[in-house]
Amino acid sequence: MLLEHTTDIYDGVTVDGASLPATTEEFKSVLEASLEAWRSTGKKGVWLKVPADRTELVPVSIDLGFELHHAEKAYIMLNMWLPSTASQLPANASHQVGVGALVLNEDGDVLVVRERNGPLRGTGIWKFPTGLIDAGEDLPDAAAREVREETGLDTEFDSVLAFRHGHRGLFGKSDLFFVVRMRLTPGADSSALQPQESEIEECQWMPRKLFAKQSAESGTVLLQELTTIMEGHLAGEATNGLRVAAAAEEEGGAEGHKGEDGRKKGGGEDGERRRHAAAFRGKKREFSRK
Amino acid sequence: MLLEHTTDIYDGVTVDGASLPATTEEFKSVLEASLEAWRSTGKKGVWLKVPADRTELVPVSIDLGFELHHAEKAYIMLNMWLPSTASQLPANASHQVGVGALVLNEDGDVLVVRERNGPLRGTGIWKFPTGLIDAGEDLPDAAAREVREETGLDTEFDSVLAFRHGHRGLFGKSDLFFVVRMRLTPGADSSALQPQESEIEECQWMPRKLFAKQSAESGTVLLQELTTIMEGHLAGEATNGLRVAAAAEEEGGAEGHKGEDGRKKGGGEDGERRRHAAAFRGKKREFSRK
Repeated sequence: MLLEHTTDIYDGVTVDGASLPATTEEFKSVLEASLEAWRSTGKKGVWLKVPADRTELVPVSIDLGFELHHAEKAYIMLNMWLPSTASQLPANASHQVGVGALVLNEDGDVLVVRERNGPLRGTGIWKFPTGLIDAGEDLPDAAAREVREETGLDTEFDSVLAFRHGHRGLFGKSDLFFVVRMRLTPGADSSALQPQESEIEECQWMPRKLFAKQSAESGTVLLQELTTIMEGHLAGEATNGLRVAAAAEEEGGAEGHKGEDGRKKGGGEDGERRRHAAAFRGKKREFSRK
Repeated sequence: MLLEHTTDIYDGVTVDGASLPATTEEFKSVLEASLEAWRSTGKKGVWLKVPADRTELVPVSIDLGFELHHAEKAYIMLNMWLPSTASQLPANASHQVGVGALVLNEDGDVLVVRERNGPLRGTGIWKFPTGLIDAGEDLPDAAAREVREETGLDTEFDSVLAFRHGHRGLFGKSDLFFVVRMRLTPGADSSALQPQESEIEECQWMPRKLFAKQSAESGTVLLQELTTIMEGHLAGEATNGLRVAAAAEEEGGAEGHKGEDGRKKGGGEDGERRRHAAAFRGKKREFSRK
């Protein structure tokens, strides 16, 4: 008897944990027989999905040669490469993706917030609304959601201005941080600001000159980059064009314990701890030669 | 006695699995005492990192209220939110990131490959070199590596032309696929093509008209998008400008068993299974009104 499984076009095998044997002993013996059978028929990668309520099966799986691959709240995924060649099994997700929104009102002032938590707490620094994209969420939707959550305002997607590629973020993963231009939804009352109580201390419309002055004085690379991108964009430069500015590297190896309040904090604060901001942006002259 | 732990600025606690008690019983009793102590001192999030060789501690952790958060080859990370409020603990990485490279030779022909494996196997379709960015790798480096691995040619980063945001990819995660322009490294011999034996059947320089014809006839949305982006870029349009074209959604809920050969196949093939390609690209006229 073999474990219930499905196969795929890559000679792969997947064992879905929904129908695993009732006891560890039985599981072990059936798994051993299954591996032998799959080896003899030239199978390559074996995926084993153990539900959160059957994690007692994990140690015995590891004993039989499986490796941990990834986990979600509902399960632990293990895998095993049967041939003697190097494993070609794909890695799990490698990136977090964050977004920061540039929103202007009728007077050309920029929408900024002060955060209640995180590295900027207590510094008095004003920044764009920022946050992490939820799994399955489109970038424009994430930007609109963050602006609404943090300031109460409804906005629509206009364009992507820049992005930065960083490394060694949460849980040792890399991240991409996008700066997008959002415009107020027609009919929205730009004076009806409602800061999100749990995360945001204050929000306001800030004259761009003041914002630029604060950025210059803050000593944070990302804030200065954001201001440069904003000014270039508003001066009519095709900042939408993308170009590598610098490589990003965080100073410390941030680990999983970076913090509870990090959830909604896409790239803003993390970025400020980096030695370089790798903004991808371009200026009109860089494309005019094409 | 409490478990050895560190604290952070978010009132968080992290237990590193390097020094866990020797037996499950001892671990259970110390963990119970620790949780009580942390609760009474107002701690919020607790992170528990269980090494791959101590996974027998996972079931008892779950019994005490921990949830699975993520896993890597070396460990399983569990966590627990102590307050009665909604958890503010951050999610694990949500995205894979892929890259496809447009490379032209002296005659303006485009560098294309035929894959040995994956969904395009046997279709005869030629495509850009593509691949997944490794954890910690910069986008330009990943593009150069993929071109070199698949074709043997050395190239340098020029610019980002477009990107697409997709969902429900490998392991249910989202993905970003970037199209970048690479130029041959000065002095590189464009005729010295060396296809990577394990992954690539053939590579060649293909006249752009032929490539466009193949794309139109292939019926694959992503290939058509790529061709449109390439043609616009080469016609001098500021395709570097970014704009949302459409939302991406895969038809089926792809799972972890997508396949062994998926490792190096960033967004190309996955993309072709999507109903829509969400290329972010713009044309000069879209920015000229600013």
